[in-house]
Amino acid sequence: MVKQYYFLVIKVERTGRYTIKLSGNTGIIGSAAVGAKAEGEGPLASEFDYLYPDDGIGQDTWEKAESELHKKAVEIAIKKSGKTPDDIDILFAGDLLNQCTGSTFGIKDMNIPFLGIYGACSTMALSLATASVFVDTGAARVAAASTSSHFCSAEKQFRFPLEYGGQRSPTAQRTATAAGCAVIEQNQPCGILVDSVLFGRVQDLGITDANNMGAAMAPAAARTIKDYLTDTNTKPEDYDLILTGDLGVVGSKLLYELLETRENLNIQSVHNDCGMMLFSRENQDVHAGGSGCGCAASVLCSHIFRRMREKELTNVLFVATGALLSSTSALQNLTIPGIAHAVHLIYR
Amino acid sequence: MVKQYYFLVIKVERTGRYTIKLSGNTGIIGSAAVGAKAEGEGPLASEFDYLYPDDGIGQDTWEKAESELHKKAVEIAIKKSGKTPDDIDILFAGDLLNQCTGSTFGIKDMNIPFLGIYGACSTMALSLATASVFVDTGAARVAAASTSSHFCSAEKQFRFPLEYGGQRSPTAQRTATAAGCAVIEQNQPCGILVDSVLFGRVQDLGITDANNMGAAMAPAAARTIKDYLTDTNTKPEDYDLILTGDLGVVGSKLLYELLETRENLNIQSVHNDCGMMLFSRENQDVHAGGSGCGCAASVLCSHIFRRMREKELTNVLFVATGALLSSTSALQNLTIPGIAHAVHLIYR
Repeated sequence: MVKQYYFLVIKVERTGRYTIKLSGNTGIIGSAAVGAKAEGEGPLASEFDYLYPDDGIGQDTWEKAESELHKKAVEIAIKKSGKTPDDIDILFAGDLLNQCTGSTFGIKDMNIPFLGIYGACSTMALSLATASVFVDTGAARVAAASTSSHFCSAEKQFRFPLEYGGQRSPTAQRTATAAGCAVIEQNQPCGILVDSVLFGRVQDLGITDANNMGAAMAPAAARTIKDYLTDTNTKPEDYDLILTGDLGVVGSKLLYELLETRENLNIQSVHNDCGMMLFSRENQDVHAGGSGCGCAASVLCSHIFRRMREKELTNVLFVATGALLSSTSALQNLTIPGIAHAVHLIYR
Repeated sequence: MVKQYYFLVIKVERTGRYTIKLSGNTGIIGSAAVGAKAEGEGPLASEFDYLYPDDGIGQDTWEKAESELHKKAVEIAIKKSGKTPDDIDILFAGDLLNQCTGSTFGIKDMNIPFLGIYGACSTMALSLATASVFVDTGAARVAAASTSSHFCSAEKQFRFPLEYGGQRSPTAQRTATAAGCAVIEQNQPCGILVDSVLFGRVQDLGITDANNMGAAMAPAAARTIKDYLTDTNTKPEDYDLILTGDLGVVGSKLLYELLETRENLNIQSVHNDCGMMLFSRENQDVHAGGSGCGCAASVLCSHIFRRMREKELTNVLFVATGALLSSTSALQNLTIPGIAHAVHLIYR
C-alpha cells in the first residue's frame, strides 16, 4: 500500500550570515546511546541504553562490530520514539570508516531512505542539523540521525593494528566504541526542541600532527561558536552549556585561548566537552580524552538529553568538531583541516 | 559586515511514499564540468568547461590532483552562475576517497559552509537533491552541489597501484578523472528547474564481485526508478530521458531486466547512462564504460544541461547510483550494497 502524505511546510529563516533558524517545534522524540567495555567502565555507563561486554560485539571483524553497534543504536532509538523503521522518512548517518561502511552495513537492511553524510567526528551535529532542517521544512515528517565509531576499527585504519602495541602520545585521544541515534519529528509542543542549526566552514590553521586532533579541531569550534553567537546576538552566559564534541583536554584549552585572544569571548564557565565526559581520565587510560563520531553522539544521546529532560539543562549549544584527514593525507604531510557544526537545543 | 537574511519558505510536499515535491522555482543557475586526458578524447570533450592535458593536474599526488579538479569545477560553476564564493550559503560535496579528502582539500579554503555527504557514485544526485531541498525551503538562498573522482586515486585506493599494471576484467568500468558542480538558487522563473527529489533505500542483492559495480548498483537504480514512477503516477514514456549515473553496459542491461521482469516496466527507449556517454567504448579502452562520482557529475553538468538549455530535453529523471563498499569490506567478502538517488529536472 502506498501511503499518501501531504505536508505544508513551516517557514525556515536564516538568522545572521550562517544560522538557520527553525520553527521551534521540531523535536527529539527518541534517542539511544550504545557502547562497549571502556564506555561501560566510564562515568556515564549507567546512562547508556545498551553496553556490550567487549569491543568484539559478537562479530568476527572490527568493522562488522562497528556496524552492529550502529544498527543497535538506530533500532533502540526508533523503538524508544514509539515508531517503526517504516515510519522513518529518512535516515542521516555517517562515520569514520573508509567509505562510511560502519553506517551503510549497519543500516542497509532497514529499508529506510538513506542520506549518507561525512563530517568525521562532527557527524552527530551534522546528521542532527541536516535531519532537523528536513523535518522542520516538511521534507520529512520523521527523520533519524545517527553515527558510530569503534576504537579498534579506527586504530587499525588510522594508526596501527592493535597487535602492534604502538605507544600513544599524551595528546592522543581514545576513539569511543559507541554509537548514538536521535529520532526527530515535526509538531512537537514541548520536549527537547531544535531551535536552530549552523553548518560550519572548514578551518585550516596548518596543524599536521595526526596525534593531536584536538589542536586541529579547536579553530573550527572557535569559528562556529563565534559565528553562532554573532548571528544570534547572544553571549556564552546565555547558554546553560556550550558542549563541544571531542576536543579533549588539549583541544579544549586551545579553544579557550583562541576565543579569548581573538574574539574576546570567555566560555569556560559554561563549556564542557564530550571527550572529557565519556571516560574518566583518572581511572581510564585515555590520554587527552575520548574521540570518534560515537563519543559526542553517545554523550549527547544519553547524558545530555537525560539532563535536558530533567530540566537541569534547558539551553544547550552542541558543537561537534571533525578533523578532515585521511591516513593518506597524513602520510602525504598535508595539514588537518577541521570543521564544526552547531545545533542549538532547548527544553520547553 | 554581517549580512542579514530573512526568508519565508516555499512549501515542500511529500508526494507518495518517498518523493519530495519542490515548489517548482528552484533552479540551476550555473554548472561546470572539468576533466582530464581520457575525458578530452571522449565524445563529450567539447562540452567540458575545462580539460587538463593529463591526469597529473599539475600536482605531485593523485589525491591532490583530484582535489584540484574538484576545486576547479566549483570555481567555474560559481563564476558561471554570476556569483562569488561569498554568495554561496552552503556547499554539498563528497567523493570516493577515504574520508572524502578529494572534496575537503579541494574546497577547504573557499570559506563556504560545508555539508559533507557520502553516496559513492550516487554523490552528484545526492548533493543536488540535498542542495535543492535546502534552497527550496529557504534554508539556503544559493547552494552549490559538487563531486569528483580520479582514475588514478581510485585505482590506487580500491584496486591496484597503476604501476602494478593489473589486468582489468571486461565488466570493470573506468573511473572518470572528472568533477562537476551545479549552483542552485531560489525564485527562478525559468531555466533548468528541480521538480522533485527522492532519496533512495539501500538495496543489497548479494553481489560480491568488486569488478562488477554495474551489477551491484542496478537493483538500487531499479528500486528508485520504480519508487519515483509509483509516487508520481508516471510512466517511463513521460520522460525525455531517464539518465542513470554509471551503470555502464553490464549494469544497464541488468537494470532493464530487473524492471521488465519484476516491475513490468520498459525504460529502454528513454534510458541512457552517463557511464556509456562519457567515453567511446569503440575508441577508448574503458571496458564496460565510465564510472566514479565525476562521471555522472560531469556528464550532467555539461552535455545534459546544455541539451536542456537548448530545449532538446525538457523532462529528465536523473538517477545516480552508488556502490557502498570499501576495500576492507570487499576483502572481508561482504556484499556490495547499492543506493540510488533521483532528481527530476525540467526545463521551462
